[in-house]
Amino acid sequence: MDECVFCRMVAGEIPVVKVYEDGAVLAFLDIGPVSDGHTVVIPKAHCTNAHECEPETLAKVGPCLGRIAGAVARAMNADGYNILCNNGRAAGQVVEHLHFHIIPRKAGDGVFRQWPAYKYEEGRISEIAEKIRKTLM
Amino acid sequence: MDECVFCRMVAGEIPVVKVYEDGAVLAFLDIGPVSDGHTVVIPKAHCTNAHECEPETLAKVGPCLGRIAGAVARAMNADGYNILCNNGRAAGQVVEHLHFHIIPRKAGDGVFRQWPAYKYEEGRISEIAEKIRKTLM
Repeated sequence: MDECVFCRMVAGEIPVVKVYEDGAVLAFLDIGPVSDGHTVVIPKAHCTNAHECEPETLAKVGPCLGRIAGAVARAMNADGYNILCNNGRAAGQVVEHLHFHIIPRKAGDGVFRQWPAYKYEEGRISEIAEKIRKTLM
Repeated sequence: MDECVFCRMVAGEIPVVKVYEDGAVLAFLDIGPVSDGHTVVIPKAHCTNAHECEPETLAKVGPCLGRIAGAVARAMNADGYNILCNNGRAAGQVVEHLHFHIIPRKAGDGVFRQWPAYKYEEGRISEIAEKIRKTLM
């Protein structure tokens, strides 16, 4: 039996409040929203996180994010929205099936405030970039 | 003259610490990171936000997000990462050229903690879903 709650939603075994569905993507309202209209967009094919997802699947999810976010923002009369994808428990991922949150925002709503930016020490940014570039090759 | 700072980066008029580039996408390190390795991924073609972006462009950005996020996470030895796209000032967008943050995370780093989830009142979730579905049509 499939234990993944999102796969079971895709299979129709667990009910969802659907807002969009096509062959590759399902979108539904989060039942524990952080703002009204908070929507979750998932690929139907199971993958745990973004870097393990098939490029072909991400190529289908990408355009859906834009289209669904636009509709969510208009429908909720939002001033903006966040698209957020948490990967790994350390990053706040709870369900281990890749998902993107679309979170409608109003000016001054205080839903997310934290942005603890800092500056790199001299030379550090180049070292890090080099490390990432090597890993990408 | 193009006033968009990200378009000027794409054009090579403003230097960036590049980690990835192809015909459609540029990725560079954020100089005001919220964690080491914090990377910004942008489509080269200008658009303000996700819902105004061409579907073809988002179809190219999607797979890059997965690939670059994987490299960033491995290079930084991260336990996870957030992919975050702020759309509109109300959502924290500063530069008005669509961009996705990839933010490497370590367990317990406290970079983002806020998740002010609540429950909908009875019937409200169905009303909202209906509104979004109608807007999507």
